[in-house]
Amino acid sequence: MDELAINMAAERALVEEHLDRYLKFPAGCPERLQEALRYSVLAPGKRLRPLLVLMAARACGGKTADAFPAACAVELIHTYSLIHDDLPAMDDDDLRRGRPTCHRQFDEATAILAGDALIPLAFEIICRDSSSPEIAARCCHQLAIAAGATQLVGGQVDDLAAQFHAMDLEKLEQIHLRKTAAMIAVSLSLGAITASATEVQRETLEKFGKNLGLAFQITDDLLDLQGEEVKMGKRVRKDRDLGKLTYPAVLGSQDSSRLANLLVDDSIKLLEGFGDGAEPLISLARFVVSRSR
Amino acid sequence: MDELAINMAAERALVEEHLDRYLKFPAGCPERLQEALRYSVLAPGKRLRPLLVLMAARACGGKTADAFPAACAVELIHTYSLIHDDLPAMDDDDLRRGRPTCHRQFDEATAILAGDALIPLAFEIICRDSSSPEIAARCCHQLAIAAGATQLVGGQVDDLAAQFHAMDLEKLEQIHLRKTAAMIAVSLSLGAITASATEVQRETLEKFGKNLGLAFQITDDLLDLQGEEVKMGKRVRKDRDLGKLTYPAVLGSQDSSRLANLLVDDSIKLLEGFGDGAEPLISLARFVVSRSR
Repeated sequence: MDELAINMAAERALVEEHLDRYLKFPAGCPERLQEALRYSVLAPGKRLRPLLVLMAARACGGKTADAFPAACAVELIHTYSLIHDDLPAMDDDDLRRGRPTCHRQFDEATAILAGDALIPLAFEIICRDSSSPEIAARCCHQLAIAAGATQLVGGQVDDLAAQFHAMDLEKLEQIHLRKTAAMIAVSLSLGAITASATEVQRETLEKFGKNLGLAFQITDDLLDLQGEEVKMGKRVRKDRDLGKLTYPAVLGSQDSSRLANLLVDDSIKLLEGFGDGAEPLISLARFVVSRSR
Repeated sequence: MDELAINMAAERALVEEHLDRYLKFPAGCPERLQEALRYSVLAPGKRLRPLLVLMAARACGGKTADAFPAACAVELIHTYSLIHDDLPAMDDDDLRRGRPTCHRQFDEATAILAGDALIPLAFEIICRDSSSPEIAARCCHQLAIAAGATQLVGGQVDDLAAQFHAMDLEKLEQIHLRKTAAMIAVSLSLGAITASATEVQRETLEKFGKNLGLAFQITDDLLDLQGEEVKMGKRVRKDRDLGKLTYPAVLGSQDSSRLANLLVDDSIKLLEGFGDGAEPLISLARFVVSRSR
């Protein structure tokens, strides 16, 4: 492992410690619900989004300690979206992060309600633990937009509707900009806010995040095509089986891979003004397109 | 109509104007999703919770104009909980507010996603339109707790689990304190926050709201037992048919009605220190137990 990998492992462990603590509920939370919440959130994950929050804060000269509430909040919203996307009425998946999906391990009602509980929990953590009300309100605002009808949810609605229709590259991009890239972009944005960055810095990082998010999705599509179910921890080649259009289906594997690398290279150029503090973020961006799961 | 009823009708119309505006989405929100959101939120409703937010603000000497974002936010969370509770995996209802439920009018995936979109929208509106970041952060914090795993969602989990088990009065109360009363109590709390009330005032109103919430639920149970489907706009006598324990089932109708009135009388006493500004709130509390739907 190189130095970056070691640092990332340490940060990831800290994110998971925080998540573990945030998922111990006071009286009033039924045991089965708490179990489902912990089962889903604490399942092995890359924790890419929280790491992006932390690295963005560092790139802006902030302390990562101040960024953990926002980092965990983004992971909670991400996990809710996985739980609900896996439901029978949506993508109907049985496997997630190498384990039975939440509704398979528990039941459908519990899975719906676990997802429902994660959304307010994200906002609760930000409001309770941010370093000031101004930062809390700005983080909540940005996160709410990214998780809302025009972004995360809108992208999922269009993705479901598009499954059986032919699509062009622009439409595909419009879906993934909202379904995947918005949550990645807001991770960068929240990191900047917790570091009291300038608005120019925040916007630059957000733009970086959008490119990175698309590159992440293209890589996901490629891994789905080439991948092994055991390694990916979820059903693979499902997209192709459903006749769903993906980047490799539209562009071919080689050009898709080229596009992902191009997007990451372009986004890294955006960070030129940030100096050495952005190095970990740049390494993380390179990991996004080189990962094998 | 008496003066109060006329005032309430005017405030209700203003709440609905605000909701209508908040439910016009910029590009990125798929048309079908926007339709489902508008269909569910703008269906005819009592708007009890937003009115409580406005009346609480007034009782604390605040301007109702400053309370509309929080008032609408509470109604959005309430509507999401109705949409998800009605799903086949939950209470499996076909009728709500006199119309087909969201998943019957659209489809299950759209209903799940419409609910999912309403939660962040509530926080977005508070953050964007509150009169200060401090007020926004405090409102988001309280609302997130009330909508979360220990309150609204926890209560619904226990309610689903309890359907086929015998229950005592204390357990029943513990469910409805979370499933119903928490959202009513937070309505009062948010009103106080938007009016920059003292913490003592806020806590008093919150306590008032908890009592009122229980009284509301008891009245709901009674109306369910006596009510007509057309008037209620939802399936009635379902609780009894499912063998679900309710207040009338545990206490009998007469004692249930007595308890509801007692709770409201007690809660009104809490408001003694608020002066004339609390009059509309008191009238609204009396309406809660005297209503016919």
